[in-house]
Amino acid sequence: MNKLNGGVTAPEGFFATGIACGIKGNGKKDLAIICSEDSAAAAGVFTTNRVKGHSLQLTMEHIKSGYANAIVINSGCANACLGKKGYADALEIAAITAGLLECEPNDILVGSTGVIGKPLNMELIRPGLEALVSGMEPEGGHDAQEAIMTTDTIFKEIAVEVELTDSSIVIGGMAKGSGMIHPNMATMIGVLTTDANISRRLLDKALKEVVEKTFNRITVDGDTSVCDMVLILANGMADNAGIIDEDDDYLAFKKGLEEVCNYLSRRIARDGEGATKLIEVVVENAASPEDAHKAASTIATSPLVKTAVFGEDANWGRIITAVGYSGVEFDPDYTDIYIGDILVCKNGCAVDFDEGAAKEALKKDEVKLLANINKGVYSDRVLTCDFSLEYVKINSSYRS
Amino acid sequence: MNKLNGGVTAPEGFFATGIACGIKGNGKKDLAIICSEDSAAAAGVFTTNRVKGHSLQLTMEHIKSGYANAIVINSGCANACLGKKGYADALEIAAITAGLLECEPNDILVGSTGVIGKPLNMELIRPGLEALVSGMEPEGGHDAQEAIMTTDTIFKEIAVEVELTDSSIVIGGMAKGSGMIHPNMATMIGVLTTDANISRRLLDKALKEVVEKTFNRITVDGDTSVCDMVLILANGMADNAGIIDEDDDYLAFKKGLEEVCNYLSRRIARDGEGATKLIEVVVENAASPEDAHKAASTIATSPLVKTAVFGEDANWGRIITAVGYSGVEFDPDYTDIYIGDILVCKNGCAVDFDEGAAKEALKKDEVKLLANINKGVYSDRVLTCDFSLEYVKINSSYRS
Repeated sequence: MNKLNGGVTAPEGFFATGIACGIKGNGKKDLAIICSEDSAAAAGVFTTNRVKGHSLQLTMEHIKSGYANAIVINSGCANACLGKKGYADALEIAAITAGLLECEPNDILVGSTGVIGKPLNMELIRPGLEALVSGMEPEGGHDAQEAIMTTDTIFKEIAVEVELTDSSIVIGGMAKGSGMIHPNMATMIGVLTTDANISRRLLDKALKEVVEKTFNRITVDGDTSVCDMVLILANGMADNAGIIDEDDDYLAFKKGLEEVCNYLSRRIARDGEGATKLIEVVVENAASPEDAHKAASTIATSPLVKTAVFGEDANWGRIITAVGYSGVEFDPDYTDIYIGDILVCKNGCAVDFDEGAAKEALKKDEVKLLANINKGVYSDRVLTCDFSLEYVKINSSYRS
Repeated sequence: MNKLNGGVTAPEGFFATGIACGIKGNGKKDLAIICSEDSAAAAGVFTTNRVKGHSLQLTMEHIKSGYANAIVINSGCANACLGKKGYADALEIAAITAGLLECEPNDILVGSTGVIGKPLNMELIRPGLEALVSGMEPEGGHDAQEAIMTTDTIFKEIAVEVELTDSSIVIGGMAKGSGMIHPNMATMIGVLTTDANISRRLLDKALKEVVEKTFNRITVDGDTSVCDMVLILANGMADNAGIIDEDDDYLAFKKGLEEVCNYLSRRIARDGEGATKLIEVVVENAASPEDAHKAASTIATSPLVKTAVFGEDANWGRIITAVGYSGVEFDPDYTDIYIGDILVCKNGCAVDFDEGAAKEALKKDEVKLLANINKGVYSDRVLTCDFSLEYVKINSSYRS
């Protein structure tokens, strides 16, 4: 597998761009399009929040056909909690774009991210869509990436080339997301593109399995949002023999997809609002996969654990406490805890550890916290970030 | 019901004091005793965390007899995650105190609060206990209160007088707790005293029911701790006809107890680490009592909701989002949200509201957030506080 430059426009036959149409009000890009030359097989994973943004609702309908031509995403406004007007606006975006691209509204997927409860300014978006479609470029992936960002501070795009038995294919991806990231899919939007020729059924299967292991294993603050989705378009232009069975080519494709999604999800966790560090929480030897996940998530969402890591304070008591209230089966007397590589708690008891070394481990850019609960054979890991003063500053005045 | 001055020593026949024996290292009081003149009926409610502090483990054993003479509590050290030494230390505290008071170790209840994983300094505590017992006073409740505080910034004590059919009784109480407060009982210790003559069975029943409605309805950051408990001693010195049935006297007693616990739990929520406001989250018309509680708790633990309240930002989208991922049965299209008295979302849609008035409501010392989900007939309320810059500062270096 080779890393390539670029993101969603790295695979053959994809065009994209991003513009500032005025939704954000600060002159920053806020409208993006990602378009396939031909109709592409499409699959998506959507927020599990019972409240769903209107653009997302529309996309869940449109993707049922299994094919799509383009994805339009705006930032600066979530288009959520607005009743019929919200859905009508999303539909109008799809209809205008379809008219410009000469396809059906049903072939357009729409996404929105930003503040809830404020209507989309369609006066700005209508002319914006025209400018967007006329500005599409085969190298426009980066502009599209910029236009879907909200509180993001780092870019999140990647492309990889994957060797199949008879040819090579490319998978590209971009994402936005920094606050409210939590399984499943909170305030994050991921767009993946590939020129692979793959059946719609296997595209869907691969996406769901990979998202479960990557995007659904990150958390910033435990909140899950109403607009979050990961979409993939596969336009088949690489001319590989079609992937229609779970054969070696399928596995190679899935591995490439996992590489892309893993990179993007780590970038999101690292970019958690106000974050200064990436935290990898590992729980080992739980009684069930569910317990492993629950314990890791509980540690990863504990504000006390996250503030301790921010302060580089080896307060492992907060880690075992989090396992204790996570509700999983375990006996504290058989639990070991590590900060980085340093054993700080053995069989539920404090051990004399080198505070300086623990401090060093906590000073790193990526901090690993491990709880081995010695109850079974299942492990899991969750990525998160520390909880800083900056997080509170950003989120205390998000709408302002 | 009359409010009286004082706390745990307001009822007849209770003595208390608090001293600095050196556990804290900063000269602040760190060891408290609350003692009844005679053996008292005793009841307790304990943390549900699977990890339990050793002092708490001992107290859960000792309280099984249903009677106790005194409670000894230290702050500055949780006496948790220390294996056999931790339990042995708690037992030694009980034994020394029993020797000084001329009763059995089994008659002494012990509590600890502070950092996990550091052993108790028994060299300091042994002489401390002597000074403690010799210093007990009938007016010493306030000193005891001071000695159980950790990051608390305000005192939490109260006493009420309750009229029964034949006489009046007094209930006193004190509590500590400011971080990690969450159902059930997180990093909070409550001590209640009464001179009422009440059966052990009814004392236990009243305590459990009242705690469920008061202390178990507050949350600061969603973490639950390993040392938390509420204890009550009833010494019968008021000479009322014994409360042995669920009659009017029992109901009056329970009402008084609720008054005391409600006051203490509100004081704890208000004193959440770094808090600037008390937030009362109400969920109305849920499909079940469990759903009402779950939705209210999810809103109350959302860092995004809590930072928005800190920033006085009427970001109601975060409230409906929290209900959406809480897992309760509801239809966003029938959900109304209020900030203070101001309707900000009707039937899941934004309404045009007076931003200035909403800001005023959020500027208050006590902020009410209400979600009416119109699905059933059950309501619940949870108290919490806002999430401030100060919270992160305090918790990023707690051990230091």
